[in-house]
Amino acid sequence: MQPFDQVTIVGVGLLGGSVALAMRERSLAKQIVGVGRDTAKLQALVDRGMLDRATIHLSGGVKDSDLVVVCTPVDTVTPSVLEAIDSAPDNCLFTDVGSTKAEIVERITSEGGDGACRFVPAHPLAGNHRGGAEFAKADLFVGRTVVLTPDESTDPEATERVGDLWKSLGAHIVALKPDEHDAALAMTSHLPHVVASALAAATPDGILELAATGWRDTTRVAAGDAGLWRQIFLANRSQVLTALNKFDQHLDAIRDAIEAEDGPELERLLAEGKRIRDALGN
Amino acid sequence: MQPFDQVTIVGVGLLGGSVALAMRERSLAKQIVGVGRDTAKLQALVDRGMLDRATIHLSGGVKDSDLVVVCTPVDTVTPSVLEAIDSAPDNCLFTDVGSTKAEIVERITSEGGDGACRFVPAHPLAGNHRGGAEFAKADLFVGRTVVLTPDESTDPEATERVGDLWKSLGAHIVALKPDEHDAALAMTSHLPHVVASALAAATPDGILELAATGWRDTTRVAAGDAGLWRQIFLANRSQVLTALNKFDQHLDAIRDAIEAEDGPELERLLAEGKRIRDALGN
Repeated sequence: MQPFDQVTIVGVGLLGGSVALAMRERSLAKQIVGVGRDTAKLQALVDRGMLDRATIHLSGGVKDSDLVVVCTPVDTVTPSVLEAIDSAPDNCLFTDVGSTKAEIVERITSEGGDGACRFVPAHPLAGNHRGGAEFAKADLFVGRTVVLTPDESTDPEATERVGDLWKSLGAHIVALKPDEHDAALAMTSHLPHVVASALAAATPDGILELAATGWRDTTRVAAGDAGLWRQIFLANRSQVLTALNKFDQHLDAIRDAIEAEDGPELERLLAEGKRIRDALGN
Repeated sequence: MQPFDQVTIVGVGLLGGSVALAMRERSLAKQIVGVGRDTAKLQALVDRGMLDRATIHLSGGVKDSDLVVVCTPVDTVTPSVLEAIDSAPDNCLFTDVGSTKAEIVERITSEGGDGACRFVPAHPLAGNHRGGAEFAKADLFVGRTVVLTPDESTDPEATERVGDLWKSLGAHIVALKPDEHDAALAMTSHLPHVVASALAAATPDGILELAATGWRDTTRVAAGDAGLWRQIFLANRSQVLTALNKFDQHLDAIRDAIEAEDGPELERLLAEGKRIRDALGN
Protein backbone atom coordinates (compact mmCIF):
# COMPACT_ATOMS: atom_id res chain seq x y z
CA MET A 1 0.00 0.00 0.00
CA GLN A 2 0.90 3.70 -0.44
CA PRO A 3 2.95 4.80 2.60
CA PHE A 4 1.62 7.38 5.06
CA ASP A 5 3.56 10.61 5.34
CA GLN A 6 3.32 10.83 9.10
CA VAL A 7 1.91 8.27 11.49
CA THR A 8 1.39 9.03 15.16
CA ILE A 9 1.24 6.22 17.71
CA VAL A 10 -0.51 7.32 20.89
CA GLY A 11 0.63 4.99 23.70
CA VAL A 12 3.81 3.17 22.76
CA GLY A 13 3.62 -0.15 24.65
CA LEU A 14 3.56 -3.71 23.32
CA LEU A 15 0.93 -3.00 20.67
CA GLY A 16 1.88 0.59 19.81
CA GLY A 17 5.55 -0.31 19.67
CA SER A 18 4.79 -3.29 17.45
CA VAL A 19 2.73 -1.12 15.07
CA ALA A 20 5.70 1.25 14.83
CA LEU A 21 8.23 -1.54 14.21
CA ALA A 22 5.94 -3.32 11.74
CA MET A 23 5.25 -0.16 9.73
CA ARG A 24 8.92 0.77 9.77
CA GLU A 25 9.99 -2.65 8.51
CA ARG A 26 7.45 -2.49 5.71
CA SER A 27 8.22 1.16 4.83
CA LEU A 28 4.60 2.12 5.43
CA ALA A 29 5.38 5.46 7.07
CA LYS A 30 7.83 8.17 6.12
CA GLN A 31 7.81 9.50 9.65
CA ILE A 32 6.68 7.84 12.91
CA VAL A 33 5.83 9.99 15.92
CA GLY A 34 5.21 8.58 19.38
CA VAL A 35 3.00 10.13 22.03
CA GLY A 36 3.40 8.99 25.62
CA ARG A 37 3.61 10.19 29.18
CA ASP A 38 7.22 9.55 30.10
CA THR A 39 9.79 11.68 28.26
CA ALA A 40 12.77 9.50 29.20
CA LYS A 41 11.09 6.29 28.02
CA LEU A 42 9.98 7.95 24.79
CA GLN A 43 13.50 9.21 24.14
CA ALA A 44 14.81 5.68 24.59
CA LEU A 45 12.43 4.49 21.87
CA VAL A 46 13.63 7.27 19.56
CA ASP A 47 17.25 6.30 20.33
CA ARG A 48 16.38 2.70 19.55
CA GLY A 49 15.08 3.81 16.15
CA MET A 50 11.50 2.69 16.79
CA LEU A 51 10.24 6.30 16.57
CA ASP A 52 11.49 9.27 14.56
CA ARG A 53 10.41 11.66 17.27
CA ALA A 54 8.27 11.68 20.39
CA THR A 55 6.25 14.03 22.53
CA ILE A 56 4.07 14.03 25.60
CA HIS A 57 1.61 16.41 23.90
CA LEU A 58 -1.00 14.57 21.90
CA SER A 59 -2.24 17.64 20.03
CA GLY A 60 1.26 18.54 18.86
CA GLY A 61 2.04 14.94 18.03
CA VAL A 62 -0.88 14.52 15.64
CA LYS A 63 -1.15 17.96 14.02
CA ASP A 64 0.63 16.98 10.79
CA SER A 65 -0.34 13.30 10.71
CA ASP A 66 -2.36 11.44 8.14
CA LEU A 67 -2.81 8.41 10.44
CA VAL A 68 -3.20 8.22 14.22
CA VAL A 69 -3.14 4.81 15.92
CA VAL A 70 -4.39 4.99 19.51
CA CYS A 71 -2.83 2.19 21.57
CA THR A 72 -3.58 3.37 25.10
CA PRO A 73 -5.40 1.35 27.75
CA VAL A 74 -9.14 1.03 27.06
CA ASP A 75 -10.22 3.83 29.39
CA THR A 76 -8.18 6.46 27.56
CA VAL A 77 -8.94 5.42 23.98
CA THR A 78 -12.02 7.62 23.69
CA PRO A 79 -10.51 10.86 25.06
CA SER A 80 -7.35 10.27 23.03
CA VAL A 81 -9.23 9.76 19.78
CA LEU A 82 -11.43 12.78 20.47
CA GLU A 83 -8.41 14.97 21.15
CA ALA A 84 -6.67 13.62 18.06
CA ILE A 85 -9.72 14.40 15.90
CA ASP A 86 -9.63 17.95 17.25
CA SER A 87 -5.96 18.52 16.48
CA ALA A 88 -5.20 16.48 13.37
CA PRO A 89 -5.62 17.60 9.73
CA ASP A 90 -9.01 17.15 8.06
CA ASN A 91 -7.96 14.13 6.02
CA CYS A 92 -6.36 12.22 8.91
CA LEU A 93 -7.45 8.64 9.62
CA PHE A 94 -7.83 7.25 13.13
CA THR A 95 -7.78 3.72 14.44
CA ASP A 96 -7.21 2.07 17.82
CA VAL A 97 -6.41 -1.30 19.38
CA GLY A 98 -8.94 -1.29 22.25
CA SER A 99 -10.12 -4.67 23.55
CA THR A 100 -13.71 -3.43 23.86
CA LYS A 101 -15.56 -1.53 21.20
CA ALA A 102 -19.23 -0.60 21.80
CA GLU A 103 -18.65 2.08 24.44
CA ILE A 104 -15.75 3.62 22.50
CA VAL A 105 -17.63 3.71 19.20
CA GLU A 106 -20.76 5.17 20.77
CA ARG A 107 -18.94 8.03 22.47
CA ILE A 108 -16.73 8.89 19.53
CA THR A 109 -19.67 8.84 17.13
CA SER A 110 -21.66 11.16 19.35
CA GLU A 111 -18.85 13.50 20.43
CA GLY A 112 -16.34 13.32 17.58
CA GLY A 113 -18.12 15.69 15.17
CA ASP A 114 -17.18 15.57 11.50
CA GLY A 115 -13.96 13.66 12.16
CA ALA A 116 -15.73 10.69 13.77
CA CYS A 117 -16.42 9.15 10.36
CA ARG A 118 -12.65 8.78 9.85
CA PHE A 119 -12.24 6.69 13.02
CA VAL A 120 -12.08 3.00 12.14
CA PRO A 121 -12.30 1.00 15.39
CA ALA A 122 -9.94 -1.96 15.47
CA HIS A 123 -8.98 -4.75 17.84
CA PRO A 124 -5.93 -6.86 16.96
CA LEU A 125 -6.13 -10.23 18.76
CA ALA A 126 -2.45 -10.14 19.49
CA GLY A 127 -2.13 -9.12 23.10
CA ASN A 128 0.18 -10.76 25.54
CA HIS A 129 0.25 -10.97 29.29
CA ARG A 130 3.65 -9.31 29.09
CA GLY A 131 3.11 -5.69 28.13
CA GLY A 132 5.58 -2.91 27.45
CA ALA A 133 7.46 -1.61 24.40
CA GLU A 134 10.38 -3.87 25.29
CA PHE A 135 8.32 -6.84 24.08
CA ALA A 136 7.24 -5.11 20.86
CA LYS A 137 8.10 -6.86 17.61
CA ALA A 138 7.61 -6.20 13.92
CA ASP A 139 5.80 -9.49 13.30
CA LEU A 140 3.36 -9.34 16.24
CA PHE A 141 0.38 -9.10 13.89
CA VAL A 142 1.46 -11.67 11.32
CA GLY A 143 -1.19 -14.37 11.03
CA ARG A 144 -3.34 -12.73 13.71
CA THR A 145 -6.94 -11.60 13.45
CA VAL A 146 -7.80 -7.91 13.55
CA VAL A 147 -11.46 -7.17 14.16
CA LEU A 148 -12.76 -3.95 12.63
CA THR A 149 -16.05 -2.55 13.92
CA PRO A 150 -17.05 0.30 11.64
CA ASP A 151 -20.73 1.30 11.67
CA GLU A 152 -22.98 3.02 9.13
CA SER A 153 -21.47 6.41 10.01
CA THR A 154 -17.90 5.32 9.20
CA ASP A 155 -16.45 6.51 5.89
CA PRO A 156 -16.09 3.34 3.75
CA GLU A 157 -12.86 4.64 2.24
CA ALA A 158 -11.38 5.09 5.70
CA THR A 159 -12.42 1.55 6.59
CA GLU A 160 -10.77 0.22 3.47
CA ARG A 161 -7.53 2.12 3.99
CA VAL A 162 -7.24 1.13 7.68
CA GLY A 163 -8.10 -2.48 6.78
CA ASP A 164 -5.35 -2.42 4.16
CA LEU A 165 -2.93 -1.15 6.77
CA TRP A 166 -3.63 -4.02 9.16
CA LYS A 167 -3.44 -6.48 6.29
CA SER A 168 -0.09 -5.00 5.30
CA LEU A 169 1.11 -5.79 8.82
CA GLY A 170 0.25 -9.45 8.22
CA ALA A 171 -3.17 -9.68 9.86
CA HIS A 172 -6.41 -10.92 8.44
CA ILE A 173 -9.53 -8.83 8.91
CA VAL A 174 -12.87 -9.75 10.44
CA ALA A 175 -15.63 -7.13 10.38
CA LEU A 176 -18.19 -7.15 13.19
CA LYS A 177 -20.66 -4.78 14.76
CA PRO A 178 -19.29 -3.27 17.98
CA ASP A 179 -21.83 -5.20 20.10
CA GLU A 180 -21.10 -8.46 18.32
CA HIS A 181 -17.40 -7.92 18.92
CA ASP A 182 -17.91 -7.26 22.60
CA ALA A 183 -20.16 -10.30 23.09
CA ALA A 184 -17.71 -12.60 21.31
CA LEU A 185 -14.63 -11.25 23.03
CA ALA A 186 -16.36 -11.45 26.41
CA MET A 187 -16.41 -15.19 25.77
CA THR A 188 -13.09 -15.75 24.00
CA SER A 189 -10.90 -13.33 25.95
CA HIS A 190 -12.48 -11.65 28.97
CA LEU A 191 -14.10 -14.75 30.49
CA PRO A 192 -10.87 -16.80 30.23
CA HIS A 193 -9.14 -14.03 32.12
CA VAL A 194 -11.75 -13.94 34.90
CA VAL A 195 -11.59 -17.71 35.22
CA ALA A 196 -7.78 -17.84 35.16
CA SER A 197 -7.56 -15.15 37.78
CA ALA A 198 -10.05 -16.83 40.13
CA LEU A 199 -8.24 -20.14 39.65
CA ALA A 200 -4.86 -18.64 40.49
CA ALA A 201 -6.26 -16.74 43.48
CA ALA A 202 -7.95 -19.90 44.81
CA THR A 203 -4.63 -21.79 44.84
CA PRO A 204 -2.70 -21.64 48.14
CA ASP A 205 0.90 -20.50 47.61
CA GLY A 206 2.13 -23.53 49.52
CA ILE A 207 1.05 -26.06 46.90
CA LEU A 208 2.43 -24.26 43.85
CA GLU A 209 5.25 -26.80 43.64
CA LEU A 210 2.53 -29.31 42.75
CA ALA A 211 1.32 -27.22 39.83
CA ALA A 212 2.14 -28.91 36.55
CA THR A 213 1.56 -27.79 32.97
CA GLY A 214 -2.24 -27.90 33.33
CA TRP A 215 -2.30 -25.27 36.06
CA ARG A 216 0.37 -23.25 34.25
CA ASP A 217 -1.56 -23.11 30.99
CA THR A 218 -4.96 -22.56 32.54
CA THR A 219 -3.80 -19.64 34.71
CA ARG A 220 -1.24 -18.05 32.35
CA VAL A 221 -3.28 -14.98 31.42
CA ALA A 222 -3.84 -14.18 35.10
CA ALA A 223 -0.35 -12.65 34.98
CA GLY A 224 -1.75 -9.80 32.88
CA ASP A 225 -1.84 -6.25 34.19
CA ALA A 226 -4.61 -5.94 36.81
CA GLY A 227 -5.23 -2.28 36.04
CA LEU A 228 -5.69 -2.85 32.32
CA TRP A 229 -8.01 -5.80 32.82
CA ARG A 230 -10.09 -3.92 35.36
CA GLN A 231 -10.75 -1.34 32.63
CA ILE A 232 -11.67 -4.02 30.10
CA PHE A 233 -14.08 -5.82 32.43
CA LEU A 234 -15.85 -2.62 33.41
CA ALA A 235 -15.99 -1.30 29.83
CA ASN A 236 -17.60 -4.58 28.73
CA ARG A 237 -19.44 -5.20 31.97
CA SER A 238 -22.79 -6.57 30.82
CA GLN A 239 -21.30 -8.87 28.18
CA VAL A 240 -18.73 -10.22 30.65
CA LEU A 241 -21.49 -10.96 33.16
CA THR A 242 -23.50 -12.74 30.46
CA ALA A 243 -20.47 -14.85 29.53
CA LEU A 244 -19.89 -15.66 33.20
CA ASN A 245 -23.45 -16.88 33.57
CA LYS A 246 -23.07 -19.12 30.57
CA PHE A 247 -19.81 -20.51 31.94
CA ASP A 248 -21.52 -21.15 35.28
CA GLN A 249 -24.17 -23.29 33.63
CA HIS A 250 -21.50 -25.54 32.14
CA LEU A 251 -19.50 -25.61 35.36
CA ASP A 252 -22.60 -26.49 37.36
CA ALA A 253 -23.44 -29.31 34.99
CA ILE A 254 -20.00 -30.85 35.52
CA ARG A 255 -20.24 -30.31 39.26
CA ASP A 256 -23.68 -31.94 39.40
CA ALA A 257 -22.42 -34.97 37.48
CA ILE A 258 -19.46 -35.34 39.86
CA GLU A 259 -21.72 -34.93 42.88
CA ALA A 260 -24.19 -37.49 41.56
CA GLU A 261 -21.34 -39.81 40.54
CA ASP A 262 -22.94 -39.90 37.12
CA GLY A 263 -20.01 -41.22 35.07
CA PRO A 264 -21.65 -41.34 31.63
CA GLU A 265 -23.04 -37.79 31.94
CA LEU A 266 -19.69 -36.53 33.24
CA GLU A 267 -17.88 -38.10 30.31
CA ARG A 268 -20.43 -36.62 27.89
CA LEU A 269 -19.83 -33.12 29.30
CA LEU A 270 -16.04 -33.50 29.18
CA ALA A 271 -16.26 -34.81 25.63
CA GLU A 272 -18.23 -31.72 24.62
CA GLY A 273 -15.48 -29.44 26.00
CA LYS A 274 -12.89 -31.59 24.24
CA ARG A 275 -14.78 -31.39 20.95
CA ILE A 276 -14.74 -27.59 20.97
CA ARG A 277 -11.12 -27.39 22.13
CA ASP A 278 -10.03 -29.88 19.49
CA ALA A 279 -11.80 -27.81 16.83
CA LEU A 280 -9.23 -25.07 17.39
CA GLY A 281 -6.12 -27.24 17.34
CA ASN A 282 -3.17 -26.84 19.62
CA MET B 1 21.42 -47.02 41.03
CA GLN B 2 21.73 -50.82 40.74
CA PRO B 3 19.72 -51.94 37.69
CA PHE B 4 16.61 -54.09 38.04
CA ASP B 5 16.73 -57.53 36.45
CA GLN B 6 13.23 -57.41 35.05
CA VAL B 7 10.84 -54.49 35.05
CA THR B 8 7.24 -54.88 33.99
CA ILE B 9 5.26 -51.88 32.77
CA VAL B 10 1.51 -52.45 33.04
CA GLY B 11 -0.21 -50.09 30.61
CA VAL B 12 2.21 -48.80 27.99
CA GLY B 13 0.87 -45.35 27.06
CA LEU B 14 2.49 -41.94 27.37
CA LEU B 15 3.68 -42.50 30.94
CA GLY B 16 4.38 -46.23 30.81
CA GLY B 17 6.17 -45.87 27.49
CA SER B 18 8.24 -43.00 28.87
CA VAL B 19 9.21 -45.05 31.93
CA ALA B 20 10.38 -47.82 29.58
CA LEU B 21 12.36 -45.45 27.35
CA ALA B 22 13.85 -43.59 30.32
CA MET B 23 14.94 -46.80 32.10
CA ARG B 24 16.33 -48.19 28.87
CA GLU B 25 18.37 -45.04 28.14
CA ARG B 26 19.80 -45.08 31.66
CA SER B 27 20.43 -48.86 31.67
CA LEU B 28 18.23 -49.29 34.73
CA ALA B 29 16.63 -52.55 33.62
CA LYS B 30 18.15 -55.64 32.06
CA GLN B 31 14.80 -56.65 30.66
CA ILE B 32 11.64 -54.59 30.13
CA VAL B 33 8.30 -56.36 29.76
CA GLY B 34 5.13 -54.59 28.67
CA VAL B 35 1.60 -55.62 29.64
CA GLY B 36 -1.30 -54.24 27.64
CA ARG B 37 -4.58 -55.14 25.99
CA ASP B 38 -3.79 -54.93 22.30
CA THR B 39 -1.33 -57.54 20.97
CA ALA B 40 -0.64 -55.71 17.72
CA LYS B 41 0.13 -52.42 19.47
CA LEU B 42 2.35 -54.18 21.99
CA GLN B 43 4.25 -55.94 19.23
CA ALA B 44 4.87 -52.59 17.55
CA LEU B 45 6.46 -51.33 20.78
CA VAL B 46 8.67 -54.45 20.92
CA ASP B 47 9.65 -53.89 17.28
CA ARG B 48 10.45 -50.29 18.06
CA GLY B 49 12.80 -51.49 20.83
CA MET B 50 10.87 -49.86 23.67
CA LEU B 51 10.05 -53.27 25.20
CA ASP B 52 11.99 -56.54 25.20
CA ARG B 53 8.80 -58.51 25.20
CA ALA B 54 5.09 -58.00 25.76
CA THR B 55 2.01 -59.89 26.83
CA ILE B 56 -1.67 -59.33 27.46
CA HIS B 57 -1.50 -61.49 30.61
CA LEU B 58 -0.56 -59.46 33.68
CA SER B 59 0.19 -62.47 35.87
CA GLY B 60 2.60 -63.95 33.33
CA GLY B 61 4.17 -60.57 32.66
CA VAL B 62 5.11 -59.95 36.30
CA LYS B 63 6.00 -63.44 37.52
CA ASP B 64 9.78 -62.97 37.25
CA SER B 65 9.92 -59.22 37.85
CA ASP B 66 11.63 -57.30 40.61
CA LEU B 67 9.77 -54.08 39.75
CA VAL B 68 6.25 -53.53 38.44
CA VAL B 69 5.20 -50.03 37.34
CA VAL B 70 1.43 -49.76 36.91
CA CYS B 71 0.60 -47.02 34.39
CA THR B 72 -3.03 -47.82 33.62
CA PRO B 73 -5.91 -45.36 33.92
CA VAL B 74 -6.84 -44.57 37.54
CA ASP B 75 -9.76 -47.00 37.74
CA THR B 76 -7.61 -50.02 36.94
CA VAL B 77 -4.58 -49.19 39.09
CA THR B 78 -5.90 -50.98 42.17
CA PRO B 79 -6.93 -54.26 40.50
CA SER B 80 -3.69 -54.26 38.49
CA VAL B 81 -1.50 -53.77 41.56
CA LEU B 82 -3.45 -56.40 43.50
CA GLU B 83 -3.07 -58.91 40.68
CA ALA B 84 0.62 -58.08 40.36
CA ILE B 85 1.15 -58.61 44.10
CA ASP B 86 -0.49 -62.03 43.74
CA SER B 87 1.68 -63.13 40.84
CA ALA B 88 5.06 -61.48 41.33
CA PRO B 89 8.00 -62.83 43.38
CA ASP B 90 8.13 -62.05 47.10
CA ASN B 91 10.79 -59.39 46.78
CA CYS B 92 9.15 -57.48 43.92
CA LEU B 93 8.52 -53.74 44.28
CA PHE B 94 5.40 -52.03 42.98
CA THR B 95 4.70 -48.45 42.05
CA ASP B 96 2.14 -46.62 39.93
CA VAL B 97 1.52 -43.28 38.23
CA GLY B 98 -2.12 -42.71 39.24
CA SER B 99 -3.37 -39.11 39.44
CA THR B 100 -5.30 -39.82 42.64
CA LYS B 101 -3.96 -41.68 45.64
CA ALA B 102 -6.17 -42.03 48.74
CA GLU B 103 -8.66 -44.53 47.31
CA ILE B 104 -5.90 -46.60 45.68
CA VAL B 105 -3.74 -46.72 48.83
CA GLU B 106 -6.66 -47.59 51.05
CA ARG B 107 -7.80 -50.53 48.95
CA ILE B 108 -4.34 -51.93 48.32
CA THR B 109 -3.43 -51.66 52.00
CA SER B 110 -6.57 -53.51 53.02
CA GLU B 111 -6.65 -56.08 50.21
CA GLY B 112 -3.02 -56.49 49.22
CA GLY B 113 -1.92 -58.75 52.07
CA ASP B 114 1.79 -59.07 52.80
CA GLY B 115 2.80 -57.59 49.46
CA ALA B 116 1.02 -54.28 50.08
CA CYS B 117 3.99 -52.94 52.04
CA ARG B 118 6.10 -53.15 48.86
CA PHE B 119 3.69 -50.90 46.93
CA VAL B 120 5.04 -47.34 46.85
CA PRO B 121 2.30 -45.09 45.45
CA ALA B 122 3.62 -42.46 43.05
CA HIS B 123 2.27 -39.66 40.90
CA PRO B 124 4.62 -38.05 38.37
CA LEU B 125 3.36 -34.56 37.48
CA ALA B 126 4.24 -35.09 33.88
CA GLY B 127 1.03 -35.83 32.07
CA ASN B 128 0.06 -34.31 28.82
CA HIS B 129 -3.26 -33.79 27.09
CA ARG B 130 -1.86 -35.90 24.27
CA GLY B 131 -1.72 -39.47 25.49
CA GLY B 132 -0.45 -42.63 23.85
CA ALA B 133 2.89 -44.43 23.60
CA GLU B 134 3.64 -42.52 20.38
CA PHE B 135 4.26 -39.42 22.51
CA ALA B 136 6.45 -41.25 25.04
CA LYS B 137 9.95 -39.90 25.51
CA ALA B 138 12.97 -40.79 27.62
CA ASP B 139 13.20 -37.33 29.21
CA LEU B 140 9.53 -36.93 30.15
CA PHE B 141 10.34 -36.96 33.87
CA VAL B 142 13.43 -34.76 33.79
CA GLY B 143 12.92 -31.77 36.05
CA ARG B 144 9.40 -32.90 36.96
CA THR B 145 7.97 -33.54 40.39
CA VAL B 146 7.03 -37.05 41.44
CA VAL B 147 4.83 -37.23 44.52
CA LEU B 148 5.24 -40.36 46.64
CA THR B 149 2.52 -41.17 49.14
CA PRO B 150 3.76 -44.06 51.30
CA ASP B 151 2.03 -44.51 54.65
CA GLU B 152 3.12 -46.12 57.93
CA SER B 153 2.53 -49.58 56.52
CA THR B 154 4.90 -49.06 53.56
CA ASP B 155 8.33 -50.70 53.79
CA PRO B 156 10.82 -47.80 54.13
CA GLU B 157 13.38 -49.64 52.01
CA ALA B 158 10.84 -50.02 49.22
CA THR B 159 10.06 -46.32 49.45
CA GLU B 160 13.74 -45.48 49.22
CA ARG B 161 14.38 -47.73 46.24
CA VAL B 162 11.34 -46.51 44.31
CA GLY B 163 12.25 -42.91 45.15
CA ASP B 164 15.77 -43.55 43.83
CA LEU B 165 14.28 -44.91 40.63
CA TRP B 166 12.21 -41.79 39.98
CA LYS B 167 15.20 -39.62 40.83
CA SER B 168 17.30 -41.62 38.39
CA LEU B 169 14.75 -40.74 35.71
CA GLY B 170 15.41 -37.06 36.43
CA ALA B 171 12.53 -36.22 38.74
CA HIS B 172 12.60 -34.66 42.17
CA ILE B 173 10.58 -36.27 44.92
CA VAL B 174 7.92 -34.78 47.17
CA ALA B 175 6.46 -36.99 49.91
CA LEU B 176 2.87 -36.40 50.97
CA LYS B 177 0.11 -38.29 52.71
CA PRO B 178 -2.41 -39.69 50.22
CA ASP B 179 -5.11 -37.27 51.42
CA GLU B 180 -2.79 -34.30 51.23
CA HIS B 181 -1.84 -35.29 47.71
CA ASP B 182 -5.44 -35.59 46.63
CA ALA B 183 -6.43 -32.24 48.16
CA ALA B 184 -3.48 -30.45 46.54
CA LEU B 185 -3.93 -32.07 43.14
CA ALA B 186 -7.66 -31.37 43.21
CA MET B 187 -6.62 -27.71 43.20
CA THR B 188 -3.54 -27.77 40.96
CA SER B 189 -4.67 -30.28 38.35
CA HIS B 190 -8.27 -31.48 38.60
CA LEU B 191 -9.91 -28.08 39.13
CA PRO B 192 -8.04 -26.51 36.17
CA HIS B 193 -9.39 -29.33 34.02
CA VAL B 194 -12.99 -28.83 35.15
CA VAL B 195 -12.70 -25.10 34.55
CA ALA B 196 -11.01 -25.47 31.15
CA SER B 197 -13.64 -27.96 30.05
CA ALA B 198 -16.55 -25.75 31.12
CA LEU B 199 -14.93 -22.76 29.41
CA ALA B 200 -14.45 -24.64 26.15
CA ALA B 201 -17.97 -26.06 26.25
CA ALA B 202 -19.44 -22.60 26.91
CA THR B 203 -17.83 -21.17 23.79
CA PRO B 204 -19.99 -21.30 20.65
CA ASP B 205 -18.16 -22.94 17.72
CA GLY B 206 -18.94 -19.94 15.54
CA ILE B 207 -16.71 -17.54 17.43
CA LEU B 208 -13.63 -19.75 17.68
CA GLU B 209 -11.91 -17.63 15.04
CA LEU B 210 -11.93 -14.88 17.66
CA ALA B 211 -10.11 -17.04 20.19
CA ALA B 212 -6.59 -15.75 20.73
CA THR B 213 -3.78 -17.08 22.91
CA GLY B 214 -5.71 -16.42 26.15
CA TRP B 215 -8.51 -18.79 25.24
CA ARG B 216 -6.04 -21.30 23.79
CA ASP B 217 -3.95 -21.44 26.95
CA THR B 218 -6.85 -21.41 29.36
CA THR B 219 -8.69 -24.26 27.63
CA ARG B 220 -5.72 -26.38 26.49
CA VAL B 221 -6.15 -29.22 28.99
CA ALA B 222 -9.79 -29.63 27.96
CA ALA B 223 -8.41 -31.63 25.01
CA GLY B 224 -7.50 -34.41 27.43
CA ASP B 225 -9.20 -37.81 27.23
CA ALA B 226 -12.75 -37.52 28.61
CA GLY B 227 -12.82 -41.12 29.82
CA LEU B 228 -9.60 -40.80 31.81
CA TRP B 229 -10.63 -37.53 33.43
CA ARG B 230 -14.03 -38.91 34.33
CA GLN B 231 -12.21 -41.59 36.34
CA ILE B 232 -9.97 -39.03 38.04
CA PHE B 233 -12.85 -36.72 39.02
CA LEU B 234 -14.90 -39.56 40.46
CA ALA B 235 -11.92 -41.14 42.26
CA ASN B 236 -11.18 -37.78 43.88
CA ARG B 237 -14.77 -36.63 44.08
CA SER B 238 -14.97 -34.92 47.47
CA GLN B 239 -11.67 -33.08 47.08
CA VAL B 240 -12.62 -31.90 43.60
CA LEU B 241 -15.95 -30.60 44.92
CA THR B 242 -14.14 -28.79 47.75
CA ALA B 243 -11.73 -27.19 45.26
CA LEU B 244 -14.67 -26.17 43.05
CA ASN B 245 -16.35 -24.45 45.98
CA LYS B 246 -13.19 -22.54 46.75
CA PHE B 247 -12.87 -21.50 43.12
CA ASP B 248 -16.50 -20.36 43.14
CA GLN B 249 -15.85 -18.03 46.06
CA HIS B 250 -13.09 -16.29 44.12
CA LEU B 251 -15.11 -16.22 40.92
CA ASP B 252 -18.10 -14.76 42.74
CA ALA B 253 -15.94 -12.06 44.31
CA ILE B 254 -14.76 -10.96 40.86
CA ARG B 255 -18.28 -11.15 39.50
CA ASP B 256 -19.64 -9.06 42.39
CA ALA B 257 -16.98 -6.41 41.83
CA ILE B 258 -17.81 -6.23 38.11
CA GLU B 259 -21.53 -6.09 38.85
CA ALA B 260 -21.04 -3.34 41.43
CA GLU B 261 -18.61 -1.51 39.10
CA ASP B 262 -16.22 -1.47 42.03
CA GLY B 263 -12.96 -0.75 40.18
CA PRO B 264 -10.57 -0.72 43.15
CA GLU B 265 -11.91 -4.01 44.56
CA LEU B 266 -11.84 -5.59 41.09
CA GLU B 267 -8.23 -4.53 40.61
CA ARG B 268 -7.34 -5.85 44.07
CA LEU B 269 -8.81 -9.26 43.22
CA LEU B 270 -7.06 -9.42 39.85
CA ALA B 271 -3.79 -8.38 41.48
CA GLU B 272 -4.14 -11.26 43.94
CA GLY B 273 -4.53 -13.76 41.07
CA LYS B 274 -1.57 -12.14 39.33
CA ARG B 275 0.56 -12.36 42.48
CA ILE B 276 0.05 -16.11 42.75
CA ARG B 277 0.50 -16.70 39.02
CA ASP B 278 3.67 -14.61 38.98
CA ALA B 279 5.04 -16.63 41.90
CA LEU B 280 5.26 -19.63 39.59
CA GLY B 281 6.92 -17.90 36.66
CA ASN B 282 6.07 -18.48 33.03
